[in-house]
Amino acid sequence: MGKANQDIAAPGRVKEITSQANPAIKEIRALFQKKYRDRQRIFIAEGRKLIVDALDQGWTIRTLVYAKAAGAEFETTAARAVAAGGDALIVPEKLLSAITRRDNPQMVIGVFEQRFKALETIAAKQSEVWVGLDRVRDPGNLGTVIRTVDAAGAKGVVLIGDCTDPYAPEAVRATMGSIFSVPVVKCTEDAFCQWRPRYSGLVAGTHLAGSVDYRTVDYTDRPLMLLMGNEQKGLSERLAGQCDVLVRIPQAGKADSLNLAVSTGVVLFEARRAALVLGDDGDTQ
Amino acid sequence: MGKANQDIAAPGRVKEITSQANPAIKEIRALFQKKYRDRQRIFIAEGRKLIVDALDQGWTIRTLVYAKAAGAEFETTAARAVAAGGDALIVPEKLLSAITRRDNPQMVIGVFEQRFKALETIAAKQSEVWVGLDRVRDPGNLGTVIRTVDAAGAKGVVLIGDCTDPYAPEAVRATMGSIFSVPVVKCTEDAFCQWRPRYSGLVAGTHLAGSVDYRTVDYTDRPLMLLMGNEQKGLSERLAGQCDVLVRIPQAGKADSLNLAVSTGVVLFEARRAALVLGDDGDTQ
Repeated sequence: MGKANQDIAAPGRVKEITSQANPAIKEIRALFQKKYRDRQRIFIAEGRKLIVDALDQGWTIRTLVYAKAAGAEFETTAARAVAAGGDALIVPEKLLSAITRRDNPQMVIGVFEQRFKALETIAAKQSEVWVGLDRVRDPGNLGTVIRTVDAAGAKGVVLIGDCTDPYAPEAVRATMGSIFSVPVVKCTEDAFCQWRPRYSGLVAGTHLAGSVDYRTVDYTDRPLMLLMGNEQKGLSERLAGQCDVLVRIPQAGKADSLNLAVSTGVVLFEARRAALVLGDDGDTQ
Repeated sequence: MGKANQDIAAPGRVKEITSQANPAIKEIRALFQKKYRDRQRIFIAEGRKLIVDALDQGWTIRTLVYAKAAGAEFETTAARAVAAGGDALIVPEKLLSAITRRDNPQMVIGVFEQRFKALETIAAKQSEVWVGLDRVRDPGNLGTVIRTVDAAGAKGVVLIGDCTDPYAPEAVRATMGSIFSVPVVKCTEDAFCQWRPRYSGLVAGTHLAGSVDYRTVDYTDRPLMLLMGNEQKGLSERLAGQCDVLVRIPQAGKADSLNLAVSTGVVLFEARRAALVLGDDGDTQ
């Protein structure tokens, strides 16, 4: 526990474990429950690529669990985790299935320390875009929004009010690794409303009563806080009242509305329209 | 079984059932498995609003199951289902939980006959947009794409190759009712490639190697078949070869790519840009 506070971590231990009843395994399995995640402030990420990316970006690893049959490149990752102060647990593949509740689990999982950024650190900087989510309920939606924010080159996500946990395994999976590169802020609606007058950028909310077409707003070279409402109820009236403009996506058909992550994507790619240009990287792949 | 072929259906029966072991209940529970759905060509839809919409749109109901404690408006719906030739089963709420595998189930579910449209019925009509999905794997993604197609005013979805089942409960849920208004075509890659020369509209595929910015294509007043690739592998080379243009969404950040439903939404709302305008309906809501 104390090792997170040291400048240079002492190396972790390597252990082979075969039983589900092992206390270290039971602790990791408990991370599927929010109360244990909240208490320990740690979470599970699955897959070698994600874990290597997280280590590269300086996230603190507590434990790495990998399958005995996984192969040499996993031992290299394990050695890195141990050098960084994490413990490495070598387990049978079926134990990884039991931990991750999947039939075909990844060969490695990592337990990392959670990070939240403070609301106060958000400043209205030139063309920085943040997405504020009002009481988002579905972990898959939240994870996909985080992934979309990353892809659109927005800066981060603010979780306002009673939101689902971005560190829930289903949310982390849906981010496809973006959980490690997109800062997440968590605050109450009160705290958001108190902070809001100090933010000099544009606050735009999507709202069913929005009378402004989202494509007619001038987003160019302006800091933006884009507020998206709860999946069922939309944006709260109080948050709607904090907005400079309420926008709406014109829609056809019998659908009530778009999925939250899709509508976030549609508005974000419009807001970031001028900033996003095709690079050469994809042309040759 | 035979009643689907009659012009006017004989009224169904009303039954009260309390046991999970009842054969009618077991048959409905089996619809969570694809092989039973494929054999019976029926599927489960949950919630009164969806079921009423489906009946309004002329979908054939086989069975309606509702909770005894559900209330008078559910009896009206049941009476409609029975008049349309469906059976109505009144059950304890916990039996609905068991059928739908949910802790807080909807108070009513409907079992409907599946519908697929033939590929040959797709013609290149003025500004009709179809979305073709290459080997889509995730039922939630497929359902969300169907919902997005509906919201964007596109015409329908073509499932190409080995796709997940649009009538899987998870897919149907994610459509939020759009399963009843968006036509779905199912075909092999061979069949698609044979059909393709007869289609005179624009065939555009999203592809990591796409050198064309999706925003630079002129979609106005042209029929469009938008091809989206598999979640992991993208568009097959054979399908990519069927395209008039390969487009790409410019992206930033560390995410590998956008979620399939999000990227479909981003491109569709661009392709339908001129066709979608804000109505007055939302301004007063």
